[in-house]
Amino acid sequence: MKPVSACILTIGNELLFGETIDTNAAFIAQQLTAAGVKIARKATLPDTIATIAQVVKNQEEDICIITGGLGPTDDDLTRQALARAFNTRLFPNQRQAKRIEAFFKRFKRPMAQSNYVQALVPQGFAALDNDFGTAPMLFRKKPFICVLPGVPREARNLMTSAVLPLVQSHFRLTPIVHKEIKTTGIGESSLFDRIKDIAVPASITLAYLPEISGVVVRLSGRNTKAIVPLRNKIRARLREYIYGRRGDTLESVIQRIFIRKKLTLALAESCTGGLIASKLVAVPGSSRYFLGSVVCYSNALKIKMAGVPKRVIQRYGAVSEETALAMTQGIRRKTGAGVALSVTGIAGPGGGTKKKPVGTVCIACVSGHKRIVEKIQLFGGRSAIQERAAYTALNFIRKSVQ
Amino acid sequence: MKPVSACILTIGNELLFGETIDTNAAFIAQQLTAAGVKIARKATLPDTIATIAQVVKNQEEDICIITGGLGPTDDDLTRQALARAFNTRLFPNQRQAKRIEAFFKRFKRPMAQSNYVQALVPQGFAALDNDFGTAPMLFRKKPFICVLPGVPREARNLMTSAVLPLVQSHFRLTPIVHKEIKTTGIGESSLFDRIKDIAVPASITLAYLPEISGVVVRLSGRNTKAIVPLRNKIRARLREYIYGRRGDTLESVIQRIFIRKKLTLALAESCTGGLIASKLVAVPGSSRYFLGSVVCYSNALKIKMAGVPKRVIQRYGAVSEETALAMTQGIRRKTGAGVALSVTGIAGPGGGTKKKPVGTVCIACVSGHKRIVEKIQLFGGRSAIQERAAYTALNFIRKSVQ
Repeated sequence: MKPVSACILTIGNELLFGETIDTNAAFIAQQLTAAGVKIARKATLPDTIATIAQVVKNQEEDICIITGGLGPTDDDLTRQALARAFNTRLFPNQRQAKRIEAFFKRFKRPMAQSNYVQALVPQGFAALDNDFGTAPMLFRKKPFICVLPGVPREARNLMTSAVLPLVQSHFRLTPIVHKEIKTTGIGESSLFDRIKDIAVPASITLAYLPEISGVVVRLSGRNTKAIVPLRNKIRARLREYIYGRRGDTLESVIQRIFIRKKLTLALAESCTGGLIASKLVAVPGSSRYFLGSVVCYSNALKIKMAGVPKRVIQRYGAVSEETALAMTQGIRRKTGAGVALSVTGIAGPGGGTKKKPVGTVCIACVSGHKRIVEKIQLFGGRSAIQERAAYTALNFIRKSVQ
Repeated sequence: MKPVSACILTIGNELLFGETIDTNAAFIAQQLTAAGVKIARKATLPDTIATIAQVVKNQEEDICIITGGLGPTDDDLTRQALARAFNTRLFPNQRQAKRIEAFFKRFKRPMAQSNYVQALVPQGFAALDNDFGTAPMLFRKKPFICVLPGVPREARNLMTSAVLPLVQSHFRLTPIVHKEIKTTGIGESSLFDRIKDIAVPASITLAYLPEISGVVVRLSGRNTKAIVPLRNKIRARLREYIYGRRGDTLESVIQRIFIRKKLTLALAESCTGGLIASKLVAVPGSSRYFLGSVVCYSNALKIKMAGVPKRVIQRYGAVSEETALAMTQGIRRKTGAGVALSVTGIAGPGGGTKKKPVGTVCIACVSGHKRIVEKIQLFGGRSAIQERAAYTALNFIRKSVQ
């Protein structure tokens, strides 16, 4: 059976020129994909009547979702473009004009005459109520077209409350199931080499998504029964690199383990400068296990706040496995945390030497019975080195308690 | 004169299905727009040889920039699609194969056989060195096509180091000049009210860009002489809210002032959990003035590491102006920093009370002669509150030394 296909058109010069990052298209695509629709393409078009009209007229997919260009100002031209595409014109819609008036009254804002253009509807389209803004959603059955305002909150709400139900009632769909294997500490190509001989049924799509925290292997398909055994086969090959599944992050997995095992964590961060702490603290509920961190960027603070003996720094240098270990032990002693981790390194662009080039990072993690100390070499610019050091450190924390 | 036009194609099922938000397209569009190129359209295509080949073949713009699908795995098909589009095939490129080998050797990582596919180049294309990853950039002169890897860091670096110079040497362009007035601490509509009566010449575009750190006023046009006086007029109206110009961030401005005035800074962070420190440390050279931070997430650490008297927390609570001030004084004493700042608050979603709802944040900043202590109410989800608290705090630091 041929899958139901869709195209997504986002309209606006600000999107085209890169001033605004298009988040609507991704949200719409996710929702449609999950519902079982195959996205054939996405395109961003300028606020130009002729261009929009031409693309709409030539559209070949079963479903077309359009966002943007429904505002009240002169550069919002989607309504006119739709009228042009279907050789018709715009008619005022009384219900929507009244709703716009009520909207301004409710928020005690002055209503400009220009707002009435938002109640104009091209013939052949229905105007559906938008509870989050003044522009109604426009809908046409044949060809199937939904037009949403570009404001992200309005687009998202209409997408779930109106577009999806309409799509589901007009088309016969089988939703797609996603399963994910989240890995860290293994590169994309090495991972691929480990599993490339596993046969993937044609009904399942296998994707490798490299994120800065690690590679995610995603299995997508319409048949759950076929996905699960394949996922288990892949999992068995990657075991030591897997930290979680869809929805997990390294940070959330760490929090879950620490809370379950009733452990506490403290950090001493040098080159990552608080990045690891801020990632952990971004997860709600982190106060249940995370005590805090000392960002000891200067040597004086490494000695004074993280309790590193001065002679360790003098003998081995601030970036050394010995200093990392001393930071960890110092912070564990000072905070009483069950698990302590520290990072010290050279994030660059300055500060590198021949023996310790930019990207040299030492990480130490100490818990009751385990101790990991490692010197690693990272690459990239300053922020890439900091991010990679942070995720490597998070993985050390996970490994030390799992 | 007809402007030079461009289309941007981003390739990847993960972009099409909305799993990944496309940030490359916006970056590329900004760069080209600034250089004077008119973006005609953007499109996202699936990892499907036939579709990519067809779109490339039918492309009508002067310039085509493609990103994505150059990885080493089976679902990376851009190379094959280009070969198909131009009725040719792929040939191994010795230089790039050697570079890939060297890349893995340098980082002491095992190289997979599959990585060699990244050295395959369609006939008619040149392979340009990519210093940030293994896939070379592909370039063709007629039609003008640049193909970049999808990894954002690689795409951005190649865009500025290779694509722009190539575009500028092949086309005659009049670049657009941008001037920016970066503000913080004033809302978009209040800012608009202050300057709305200023006449803007038709040759200049004025844009209000709300960022989480504040509103940026951008003036764009091809005529520098007209822009400068307008910028000066606007600057005079917004003086106390302005922290910098295009290229500046609050963090970089703070660093510049601290280094010039030979000052040092230390922090004590509770609800921001290291976020402020990590922002400061993201700027190269921050070790010249930034000593460190204590992320005292628990009360025990506020007392032990930040030197807050126990009775202050007992009497006023952990989230109070008194505790914020005590944290600041404690951290300044312990580190010897010239300027100290602290933040304590409730980022939510839990932990709010009627008297101290989620979003209550207390910030204190003490330097030799100045002292700012404030309790503010922030809105949004956990990460929005943490980000807003961080930027408000950074602005306090700036104001205390400026």
